[in-house]
Amino acid sequence: MADSLNCDLTSLSPLQLFERVTEQGEKVRALKAGKAPKDEIDAAVRMLLSLKLSYKTTTGQDYQAGLPPRDLVLINNGTTKEEDEDFVDPWTVQTSNAKGVDYDKLIVRFGSSKIDTDLINRIERAIGQKPHRFLRRGIFFSHRDMDQILDAYENKKSFYLYTGRGPSSQAMHVGHLIPFIFTKWLQEVFDVPLVIQLTDDEKYLWKDLTTEKAYEYARENAKDIIACGFDVNKTFIFSDLDYLGTSTGFYKNIVKVQKHVTFNQVKGIFGFTDSDCIGKISFPAIQAAPSFSSSFPQIFNGKENIRCLIPCAIDQDPYFRMTRDVAPRIGQPKPALLHSVFFPALQGAQTKMSASDPNSSIFLTDTPKQIKTKINKHAFSGGRDTIEEHRKYGGNCDVDVSFMYLTFFLEDDDRLEQLKQAYTSGELLTGELKKVLIETLQPLIAAHQERRKQVTDEVVKQFMTPRKLAFEF
Amino acid sequence: MADSLNCDLTSLSPLQLFERVTEQGEKVRALKAGKAPKDEIDAAVRMLLSLKLSYKTTTGQDYQAGLPPRDLVLINNGTTKEEDEDFVDPWTVQTSNAKGVDYDKLIVRFGSSKIDTDLINRIERAIGQKPHRFLRRGIFFSHRDMDQILDAYENKKSFYLYTGRGPSSQAMHVGHLIPFIFTKWLQEVFDVPLVIQLTDDEKYLWKDLTTEKAYEYARENAKDIIACGFDVNKTFIFSDLDYLGTSTGFYKNIVKVQKHVTFNQVKGIFGFTDSDCIGKISFPAIQAAPSFSSSFPQIFNGKENIRCLIPCAIDQDPYFRMTRDVAPRIGQPKPALLHSVFFPALQGAQTKMSASDPNSSIFLTDTPKQIKTKINKHAFSGGRDTIEEHRKYGGNCDVDVSFMYLTFFLEDDDRLEQLKQAYTSGELLTGELKKVLIETLQPLIAAHQERRKQVTDEVVKQFMTPRKLAFEF
Repeated sequence: MADSLNCDLTSLSPLQLFERVTEQGEKVRALKAGKAPKDEIDAAVRMLLSLKLSYKTTTGQDYQAGLPPRDLVLINNGTTKEEDEDFVDPWTVQTSNAKGVDYDKLIVRFGSSKIDTDLINRIERAIGQKPHRFLRRGIFFSHRDMDQILDAYENKKSFYLYTGRGPSSQAMHVGHLIPFIFTKWLQEVFDVPLVIQLTDDEKYLWKDLTTEKAYEYARENAKDIIACGFDVNKTFIFSDLDYLGTSTGFYKNIVKVQKHVTFNQVKGIFGFTDSDCIGKISFPAIQAAPSFSSSFPQIFNGKENIRCLIPCAIDQDPYFRMTRDVAPRIGQPKPALLHSVFFPALQGAQTKMSASDPNSSIFLTDTPKQIKTKINKHAFSGGRDTIEEHRKYGGNCDVDVSFMYLTFFLEDDDRLEQLKQAYTSGELLTGELKKVLIETLQPLIAAHQERRKQVTDEVVKQFMTPRKLAFEF
Repeated sequence: MADSLNCDLTSLSPLQLFERVTEQGEKVRALKAGKAPKDEIDAAVRMLLSLKLSYKTTTGQDYQAGLPPRDLVLINNGTTKEEDEDFVDPWTVQTSNAKGVDYDKLIVRFGSSKIDTDLINRIERAIGQKPHRFLRRGIFFSHRDMDQILDAYENKKSFYLYTGRGPSSQAMHVGHLIPFIFTKWLQEVFDVPLVIQLTDDEKYLWKDLTTEKAYEYARENAKDIIACGFDVNKTFIFSDLDYLGTSTGFYKNIVKVQKHVTFNQVKGIFGFTDSDCIGKISFPAIQAAPSFSSSFPQIFNGKENIRCLIPCAIDQDPYFRMTRDVAPRIGQPKPALLHSVFFPALQGAQTKMSASDPNSSIFLTDTPKQIKTKINKHAFSGGRDTIEEHRKYGGNCDVDVSFMYLTFFLEDDDRLEQLKQAYTSGELLTGELKKVLIETLQPLIAAHQERRKQVTDEVVKQFMTPRKLAFEF
């Protein structure tokens, strides 16, 4: 029995093994539920343990129900409990920890570098300004080669910024703004060109959308992005469906990346399978190509050596790990990266805010009343069950979603520290903390809505027209 | 032993099985060469036979050394010997039969239709002209939906022609001209627009070429194509590397095809593996997309319902089987096809003429002397070993490469029939037949060279500029 099992298992892929473990787990549960004889249950459990062992041997990871194997090398040392493991890829962010993903572990896993005080101080010296609150508070917490970007900047060598958005619907939520708020700040302090990719082709490939609808969402999302205050003379926003057919440089870089990445590689990095469409399989090259300045001949005059800095949430890193691997082989510089944490869902930091779950999200279209209701009703509280207990023991800012949101949106460091002290000591109640958040978010979103109204179709067209920007190359 | 073997084999892919058979075959040869004990050799042979059986059960094909499994369903009935099996895909054409590939079998395999006398007569009635010698002589021998194209034509509904070339080098040989000679005739008799795809991206992906070199070859090859006499007002020639970045319609169709084809499908159709780059894996969509008129908005005014007719050698059919499968699912009409036989190598019809083997090819740049020497030296003869035997028993036109080439290039049916009679009867000697071929080809190629000299860079630019053609849509 054991022999025939092993014989089968050696030839199974991680995913097949994962499925076998899942099946066996269901079998054990069914036997227990059906009050089967003890020896039958015991045999099924032994088989389950054996399968889990094979899974761990093959993948280097413990089996986790609902989380198929990916390329993530989880860090398991003797003291790590299974519940501490986080799952992060471009489509899924999940952790069982109410504090959210363990970002220090993610840095080790992904092989990136921590944005430490030294680097923040160096940025401050370079730009001669106070660093953005996202840097001060560890919201952008990880990087790749940011020191090289600063070397270049200090030597008067220019670079450019690249970020993006997948336009899966008209509805953008406050979490979607994080990379754009930070990118806008970077653009201002460094005074560099910025390209923003709207991956409408990706959304067409992944979702039940027509190309027309995906392109429409791209244009609508562009309005929210523009409303963040980008300078039209320094910013190019493009839809893949549109720009690929209007740029002589973009496709050439895409096909170069595609020549240097195998199916085995994207299978390992993104978890693609043989049943995935060839569009998904080749898409990573399309997100990679804007990392190379020759994809924008109209901006960079065809120059190939301009360095690129990509601010993005860390779940997008797999695309750029791949890009950095390919870059030297196609004679291009590696893009540098600045990684942000995820913006937590209202229900708690176990998952990121998702537009597909309206109760988890504060949308950019929400009215002041909707914002108030959502926060009061859904924002996970780190407070105590009763006022008495709260006064006595205090609240927990580490898991309190309202407090987390304030770290993103409240500019005043002293005020934030006061709130933290007051909440932790029990002086400030949950309702009072939520009120501060509501009063912080309502005017921010109202102002965004006001700016968005100014963004006409004509303005969108200006941003999305391939053209020279206000820089010489 | 047998059990553990079967246990392993059930989970192996056809390719893995193929590799196991190959390994085992090598083991058997090594044992025999090393004069191993008889029972050891016997055991290894039994294992080999068992593996071959598993391979046949899994793939429906007999194992053939050097030919990995593909999607070709070989027709094996009781009477078919292994040596009769032909191998045909977009990269390889091989048969052991000196008469060449069995095209009737290929029609059954590929599920296409024979171009029979009825269809040829119908074409003649529709165009009011004698059909091209390639039709009269079965050089274009197979089709898909040509009857529907004729229905449309008779109802005054227009269609367009699409053919192409992979620009792997500057050197084009006479065999490369076959689809273009025929396409030019089709364009003249039906008076329809023509698009010609130069897949420089494909050649970049498959060969050791830079994108610049592949594009240069595309432009050089365009000169030879234009020298066939195409009308610039009715013909658009495009390089993928260039056109993809200048057409709003082309990429949209590519991504639509890519959404509807899985890796499993291209693996089955083209034999791709997990080690292939994602560029190769997604390339079939790029050859598919010109089958849809919306890939050429400048020609068809954005119209999506214009039917497409593709004249090509039958080894390109896998691309268009895939295209026809996808077309209705993306709301597009299926392209119709006209399939030609392969142009045989000088050495015989077991393989097609290949530019990478100079001795197998007559190049469009060859001098009259080179043409004469190559034919006299390399053209496989169906004649007898001595003049006496030849006079007595006659030659065999079915395997004689010079005679085959004359069926392609000698316009006069009566003359061709006379030559056949004379050669078969022994009246005409091999040298005399070769002389007829030399005297036929020399002026044809000289005239081609003369026309090619007229094709300036400016003319190439005209053909390759996206623009309206002399048709209203």
